Amino acid sequence: MIREGFWTEVFKLQGSVTPYIAGRLIAFTLFGACAYFFFDIFKIHNGLATAHYEYIGAVLALLLVMRTNAGYDRWYEARKLWGGIVNQSRNLAQIGLIYGPQDRKWREAYARWVAAFSRSCCHSLRDEKKYNEIAQLAETVGVEETRRLSDANHMPMYVVRRVGELLKEAVEKDDLDRFYFLQAEAERARLIDHLGGCERILKTPLAAAFSIKIRRFLFLYLLFLPIAIVDAAGMITPLIVFLVAYPLLALDQIGVELENPFSKSRLNHLPLDQISDNIRSNVLASLEDLEPLVPYAESP
Amino acid sequence: MIREGFWTEVFKLQGSVTPYIAGRLIAFTLFGACAYFFFDIFKIHNGLATAHYEYIGAVLALLLVMRTNAGYDRWYEARKLWGGIVNQSRNLAQIGLIYGPQDRKWREAYARWVAAFSRSCCHSLRDEKKYNEIAQLAETVGVEETRRLSDANHMPMYVVRRVGELLKEAVEKDDLDRFYFLQAEAERARLIDHLGGCERILKTPLAAAFSIKIRRFLFLYLLFLPIAIVDAAGMITPLIVFLVAYPLLALDQIGVELENPFSKSRLNHLPLDQISDNIRSNVLASLEDLEPLVPYAESP
Amino acid sequence: MIREGFWTEVFKLQGSVTPYIAGRLIAFTLFGACAYFFFDIFKIHNGLATAHYEYIGAVLALLLVMRTNAGYDRWYEARKLWGGIVNQSRNLAQIGLIYGPQDRKWREAYARWVAAFSRSCCHSLRDEKKYNEIAQLAETVGVEETRRLSDANHMPMYVVRRVGELLKEAVEKDDLDRFYFLQAEAERARLIDHLGGCERILKTPLAAAFSIKIRRFLFLYLLFLPIAIVDAAGMITPLIVFLVAYPLLALDQIGVELENPFSKSRLNHLPLDQISDNIRSNVLASLEDLEPLVPYAESP
Amino acid sequence: MIREGFWTEVFKLQGSVTPYIAGRLIAFTLFGACAYFFFDIFKIHNGLATAHYEYIGAVLALLLVMRTNAGYDRWYEARKLWGGIVNQSRNLAQIGLIYGPQDRKWREAYARWVAAFSRSCCHSLRDEKKYNEIAQLAETVGVEETRRLSDANHMPMYVVRRVGELLKEAVEKDDLDRFYFLQAEAERARLIDHLGGCERILKTPLAAAFSIKIRRFLFLYLLFLPIAIVDAAGMITPLIVFLVAYPLLALDQIGVELENPFSKSRLNHLPLDQISDNIRSNVLASLEDLEPLVPYAESP
Amino acid sequence: MIREGFWTEVFKLQGSVTPYIAGRLIAFTLFGACAYFFFDIFKIHNGLATAHYEYIGAVLALLLVMRTNAGYDRWYEARKLWGGIVNQSRNLAQIGLIYGPQDRKWREAYARWVAAFSRSCCHSLRDEKKYNEIAQLAETVGVEETRRLSDANHMPMYVVRRVGELLKEAVEKDDLDRFYFLQAEAERARLIDHLGGCERILKTPLAAAFSIKIRRFLFLYLLFLPIAIVDAAGMITPLIVFLVAYPLLALDQIGVELENPFSKSRLNHLPLDQISDNIRSNVLASLEDLEPLVPYAESP
Repeated sequence: MIREGFWTEVFKLQGSVTPYIAGRLIAFTLFGACAYFFFDIFKIHNGLATAHYEYIGAVLALLLVMRTNAGYDRWYEARKLWGGIVNQSRNLAQIGLIYGPQDRKWREAYARWVAAFSRSCCHSLRDEKKYNEIAQLAETVGVEETRRLSDANHMPMYVVRRVGELLKEAVEKDDLDRFYFLQAEAERARLIDHLGGCERILKTPLAAAFSIKIRRFLFLYLLFLPIAIVDAAGMITPLIVFLVAYPLLALDQIGVELENPFSKSRLNHLPLDQISDNIRSNVLASLEDLEPLVPYAESP
Repeated sequence: MIREGFWTEVFKLQGSVTPYIAGRLIAFTLFGACAYFFFDIFKIHNGLATAHYEYIGAVLALLLVMRTNAGYDRWYEARKLWGGIVNQSRNLAQIGLIYGPQDRKWREAYARWVAAFSRSCCHSLRDEKKYNEIAQLAETVGVEETRRLSDANHMPMYVVRRVGELLKEAVEKDDLDRFYFLQAEAERARLIDHLGGCERILKTPLAAAFSIKIRRFLFLYLLFLPIAIVDAAGMITPLIVFLVAYPLLALDQIGVELENPFSKSRLNHLPLDQISDNIRSNVLASLEDLEPLVPYAESP
Repeated sequence: MIREGFWTEVFKLQGSVTPYIAGRLIAFTLFGACAYFFFDIFKIHNGLATAHYEYIGAVLALLLVMRTNAGYDRWYEARKLWGGIVNQSRNLAQIGLIYGPQDRKWREAYARWVAAFSRSCCHSLRDEKKYNEIAQLAETVGVEETRRLSDANHMPMYVVRRVGELLKEAVEKDDLDRFYFLQAEAERARLIDHLGGCERILKTPLAAAFSIKIRRFLFLYLLFLPIAIVDAAGMITPLIVFLVAYPLLALDQIGVELENPFSKSRLNHLPLDQISDNIRSNVLASLEDLEPLVPYAESP
Repeated sequence: MIREGFWTEVFKLQGSVTPYIAGRLIAFTLFGACAYFFFDIFKIHNGLATAHYEYIGAVLALLLVMRTNAGYDRWYEARKLWGGIVNQSRNLAQIGLIYGPQDRKWREAYARWVAAFSRSCCHSLRDEKKYNEIAQLAETVGVEETRRLSDANHMPMYVVRRVGELLKEAVEKDDLDRFYFLQAEAERARLIDHLGGCERILKTPLAAAFSIKIRRFLFLYLLFLPIAIVDAAGMITPLIVFLVAYPLLALDQIGVELENPFSKSRLNHLPLDQISDNIRSNVLASLEDLEPLVPYAESP
Repeated sequence: MIREGFWTEVFKLQGSVTPYIAGRLIAFTLFGACAYFFFDIFKIHNGLATAHYEYIGAVLALLLVMRTNAGYDRWYEARKLWGGIVNQSRNLAQIGLIYGPQDRKWREAYARWVAAFSRSCCHSLRDEKKYNEIAQLAETVGVEETRRLSDANHMPMYVVRRVGELLKEAVEKDDLDRFYFLQAEAERARLIDHLGGCERILKTPLAAAFSIKIRRFLFLYLLFLPIAIVDAAGMITPLIVFLVAYPLLALDQIGVELENPFSKSRLNHLPLDQISDNIRSNVLASLEDLEPLVPYAESP
């Protein structure tokens, strides 16, 4: 991952949440301007103690930072679960291909179905179920099976059952030692666990009361802000409202964006397609035979 | 999960804690008004140093935020444990149905008892024990066994024993290889662990001294607040008390609501019924046979 | 767990740390009063910059909150370890009783010794070793063995060895399949791990330098507090000292109380007796036979 | 690890980020000076309320500290994963060499390939693939195999497959008991997991929106800072800008430096070469035979 | 662990970091005094805006608290790893002694070598390698083997290999069932993992840039502090500098002290000798035979 320089990042718009919050930001700034004119025309001095107002703002900021943190934790947990899918797919493929039957046909079917798991997860997490949405899978498991997948009630479980059947077949033909099988089965179970973790993240929003409350505090805070500062700030009231509202609204929106790390419609969604392609190429590459080992002593 | 827009969430009442805290909020605001009139009528200036008062408020806010965080962690841990129940139920069903006996009767009984685990946990965590409260289980395991469940001293353990007996039966008839059994048993043990985790969350409140102390500080703080600010704030004292008390009381109540993630009477309780239904449909769907695999090479 | 209302908790004394800190609180408040009279009589104005003083206070509060947090984490870790003892005891009992020998005598001895583990841990963690302190164990394992336990150099290890001997006996008589045994032994090892975790918490205080330093800062801070504020606060100096000292001293004391979650002499100690009784009744209940399963299809 | 004294560390330049941020720091300081002269010449008083400005600064600092923390966590996670590579390499070597075939040739090949894993990870994480970049590996596995490694599509997976083949060979010749094999295979799978963890850290930056946003806030904050304080600070405006900008820019840069713990071009990169050398010497040392044990009773 | 009272801890010097930082503390206080005299003699008013200075101080304090926290986490992680060494040593001993060969000689050798592991770790982590430094080990494994240990390139690995050889011997003589062996080997591998964790903590300092930067900020902050406050604080400038510098320097030093939890030269180092002695006595006690079990029914 290449990191860009300081100044580039400062002025980069792509991948920023600014466009998402522009409306609200302008609304609060305009409200700030109105408040100023209202107080200015009627010469009102409200004397609201700004010290306590700042204190409320600090609580709000702390809550927002905490929620952003929680959102980032979810996002990173999702990334870790996909890291686990990479690991377990690789392990599962290796165990089957090194210790399993030498039968060419079994090996290919096994590798293909293991490779298909990650992409089927990806489609399942994005709720893509129709044949044309998952057509890419045909390159891995063929057209006919892709059609069946699109009908399955839970795609990744269908893939996992196929892998399970292949393992069972190998064990029952005595082509796969039961001790090897134990390892393969453990990895297969962990794959299902990782998928379950992703589904949990997808289906569980932040606790609703928690989330709504933050937005309501944010609204009340920004509403009363111009009234609180107009006495002291005068003409530049809207500018200060803008400078305070910008980070707060942005933090709120970033928290929301981080909540669903799988959907393509969110900023910062994880590159699931790319990860799935990597797994596929790694796993299918393991199909190739290793040349005989050249011992150290005999190496030139 | 669909997230609503900013403005919708701001004004949404459903799922909010506001109705729960309205009484206290009004009480403190009225007290603020009384304090103002008292000081105004008798022309008293107390000169309380507000700077240190704010500092106390900051400590209090920090404590409240910390407790909300702890409450959220518990809530999320409960969600993770239920995610584990989903994973392990699916794994357990798969192992038994793929590698286990082909006997139709055993397969159905096994799938039904695995599927019954999550709902029996759900009833147990909500302390629903009478037959009419758990009648839905009859769809999964039949009327007679549901009646026995309602008499059992610990419902989920009864289910787990049934699953254990079925596994034992299969192993002893040599229909389930001992290596397959090892995997099934490990998943069964993890199911009990997840349930134990939920029971721990249910039975352990936050440390009592911790919890009581926060509410006492909160009370003392809000009691002295109007007296501290009346000199500077004058007429708008009640308004400031309201603005300060609202987030603090709400945070306190959210912390309380998050403490028991299972009870239906709490806001933000987890959707245990829905999760249990999903598990049931997933598990029972695995009873259907897979069609023979179409190899990639032979796919059109 | 039933949670009481807001107002009840505010005024509840039971389970509060207030009585523990009353002495210190009064001492600092009186010192505040003395400082006021001293400065008032000699008409001294010290002009101490309170701004920086507040900043020191904030660092102190942050440290106290952090320590309370660390204490709470230890307390919760202890609770989790006991949750693990519940889980593993139940698992261990189930494995032995479902898959183990059908011999009535073995089954009873096995269940009793598994059930005895948690209570022996409880006694061991509270350093109760004499026969009369652990007499309750006689209901579980008999008088003679309880006497031996009271002589053992490490009670829970004695229990665990007994369980191990029983398992070995069953395996060597070919009454317990080696595959079943593997599972049982894994659970037995985890029981020892949980106990080791509790012993670690019991024996490791917070790092001493860390703990002493906080109390010294707290002392210095509260000592200089009245001098710092007397110019601005005047007559109400003692009141402010009281309001500031109360939460800080309480937080400090709560941190101390949370450090040892096992001792009965601490507030908030874990209900180990009750947990042990639950385990005992759960485990002994598993001795009863299950009636034959009524299949779904045959249920009325 | 030897820690240097307080004063040494204060004045040490090596390993510091100061040179990296010097440009930005000077730019903002000069801008501060310009702002001062502009306001001074035109006698403008802007009256910007600095209180709210500080509050924005606090939010910013909190975010920066949080990001530094997140970066440090990644860095430490990477270190833990490499600790895991050390552990699993040692375990894997021990299992094969103690319980495996006594055949000298197999033993050497096995030890060499296990020892090669960590260095091949190190090269892979730094994207070093050409023969001359990985030439050091020839000392471990010979020239010919190093050449093949440089052609492999994924170096560490090639090594792991070699180890797998060696284990399989030993098992099939009945030189390695299947029970010993189970342990070896579990360690081999964990090695792949650790590598996968490192790859995850390498490929996942902090969520982009999160990262960009912080830099934009930082920029806006430092831009308006001189304008906010020029009224009060006068001539020393640039000095204050410098003192505020220095820690903030440094924290930002440290966060960036910590993001990639593997690249040699970053400060604080992990000493992967040294760790790999340690593993190699530990593993190859295990090839030597142990002398027969001298029992305690027979020891002089 | 007995906790002392509030007042005792306040005035306790032993185990405090105060002596370590006295030099720096006096240096900064004297500098504060000089600054005061300089400004007083030349009647200079610098007008430095203290508000922003405080803000810098808050960032610094946050960083210090964070580092102290990170240091404490490392310290506690080390304690947990040693808790693991206790657990795994006990488990390993139990498995071998309950399920292993009944041969007196093997049992004693096994128990002694398991018991020797923790002390050899302790010596290894403290870099004690010469015979006279590790002479205490002779009581456990005899003089001759202790001599060999002092020559070994990695003491704990030598011990672990010995244990491995003993297990292998038992398995190959068919005195230890392979299923029992699996458990023992898993515990043995975890012992190596725990040791690896301790070595990781020992060899990894906090990221250097992070650590240096904090000390430089601390220095700059304390250097400018008297200049910033001399206008407002006047004569008592040195006192305030002292009160501010004391907690900050102490926190910094505590962070450093916590970094290496093993070295005897650090405050708060873990009681490794005592833990090792406990393990030794626990393990050797397991050598004694258990008397035959008295069943509950037959107990008086």
